[in-house]
Amino acid sequence: MVYTNDLAPIGVFDSGIGGLTVLKGLINLLPFENWVYLGDTARLPYGSKSPETIRNYTLQNLKYLSRYHCKAYVIACNSASAQFPDKSFNGVPVFNVIEPGVKQALSFTDSLKIGIIGTKATINSHIYKNKLLNQNYQGKILEQACPLFVPLVEEGLYEGDVTDLIIHQYLADFKKEKIDSLILGCTHYPLLKKALSKYFDLPIKFISSEFYLSEMLKNQKLTNTSNANSSRNDKPKPQGFTSTIKVLTTDDYKHVKSLIEDILEDLNPSFETVDIRPN
Amino acid sequence: MVYTNDLAPIGVFDSGIGGLTVLKGLINLLPFENWVYLGDTARLPYGSKSPETIRNYTLQNLKYLSRYHCKAYVIACNSASAQFPDKSFNGVPVFNVIEPGVKQALSFTDSLKIGIIGTKATINSHIYKNKLLNQNYQGKILEQACPLFVPLVEEGLYEGDVTDLIIHQYLADFKKEKIDSLILGCTHYPLLKKALSKYFDLPIKFISSEFYLSEMLKNQKLTNTSNANSSRNDKPKPQGFTSTIKVLTTDDYKHVKSLIEDILEDLNPSFETVDIRPN
Repeated sequence: MVYTNDLAPIGVFDSGIGGLTVLKGLINLLPFENWVYLGDTARLPYGSKSPETIRNYTLQNLKYLSRYHCKAYVIACNSASAQFPDKSFNGVPVFNVIEPGVKQALSFTDSLKIGIIGTKATINSHIYKNKLLNQNYQGKILEQACPLFVPLVEEGLYEGDVTDLIIHQYLADFKKEKIDSLILGCTHYPLLKKALSKYFDLPIKFISSEFYLSEMLKNQKLTNTSNANSSRNDKPKPQGFTSTIKVLTTDDYKHVKSLIEDILEDLNPSFETVDIRPN
Repeated sequence: MVYTNDLAPIGVFDSGIGGLTVLKGLINLLPFENWVYLGDTARLPYGSKSPETIRNYTLQNLKYLSRYHCKAYVIACNSASAQFPDKSFNGVPVFNVIEPGVKQALSFTDSLKIGIIGTKATINSHIYKNKLLNQNYQGKILEQACPLFVPLVEEGLYEGDVTDLIIHQYLADFKKEKIDSLILGCTHYPLLKKALSKYFDLPIKFISSEFYLSEMLKNQKLTNTSNANSSRNDKPKPQGFTSTIKVLTTDDYKHVKSLIEDILEDLNPSFETVDIRPN
């Protein structure tokens, strides 16, 4: 038996398909929800664009998702999160990936040496750093924009000589300073975990947003529960509920299919290409 | 005395600001024209997107430029050129960069070994290869998509270890085959000429579209002339004409200012950020 609070979907969006890493984590943690994901692949990337344009695109994406009568929105894109701190859109709660990422970083760091990597837009906004300081964090913070990481991931270059050299060029200081926690401030970056782990001399804790995102959704009583054990290891799922997962993209998704499969693995959503141009 | 045929501007567009390399070459060759350039920086890059989306964006860009009553359009973007072979738009002639590039390659190659590099969209379209074959070219053709070159240029990494390694990964076969002419099938690539020259053992002729583009415009009697020598070395310009150059971008151009300056050098256009969203 699943106790449903509201079977309306949770709407998730990202500039592209990298945000499927966030969606996948959330599905695992919140197995009794329906999901609609919007990847704005026709206009990606956001991270190299101006704050005004990113905010404008964010509003258009939320408006488009609103036709699915979502009970909550998750902005999976860090660049968009940095430009859209708003807590709601047309009365529906909006969650971004910054605050849950900061919470996890604070709970994970032992040495109080936190590294933050992201797109130019995210790093230039200093949003992670400022949120850490607002939480009275007194340790060391290193920030680095890594604009070549997204094209590397999109080329499937998760490992190899080029990837190693680019990691070295961006993160030599992080290594020297012996950070113990690394905020992956872009949805593409989880696919570089293996290469990043190899680069650092010490074990690195990778910070992502999914766990605290799911906690925040639960705390606001937006989620459904089951009388069976609904932990992340709860498989197979209790009878009586099959989660629907809809993935919308603004460009044809076929030419990024292999990246989608690398991220989603065993999940099998329905796909649709949509036109979100405003009237 | 300048003999004006039509002082209406020539409209040039690209997915971003890379096409300013084409604009600069054209201004040099056709000094008695007015220019309006549209860089679709809010939606770049095009080269990783689907053919349908690229053609759709191209039509929107031409429509936007039409409000300047252009006497001709130049599609400076190779990815857009590959998806838009049309010779006119609303009765105004349209020129793309493919055919003039092919003409230059045919006139330049001695060894009949031509290499073609471009974005995924351009290379997958095989448009350069097909046009060479249509011209009855019987030599060797090598093609390679180089999707990491654009982000390299946008990061200002025109030279250095990362650039050299990526060039090697893409172009080892070109070097082995001893190509003598390289079609730079993307407007960003001219900024990598120095690194590319260094990589090849033999002198390489870089193929671009500006010379034959200007010839095609002249042949269609779309250009203005002067009784003074109007060659590319004609400086200072004859009295009585000052070319106006307007650069429009769909995203704020300030964060790409250094790349613009690297391309335009001594030119000083006016800038404007515009919203081309269709109604």
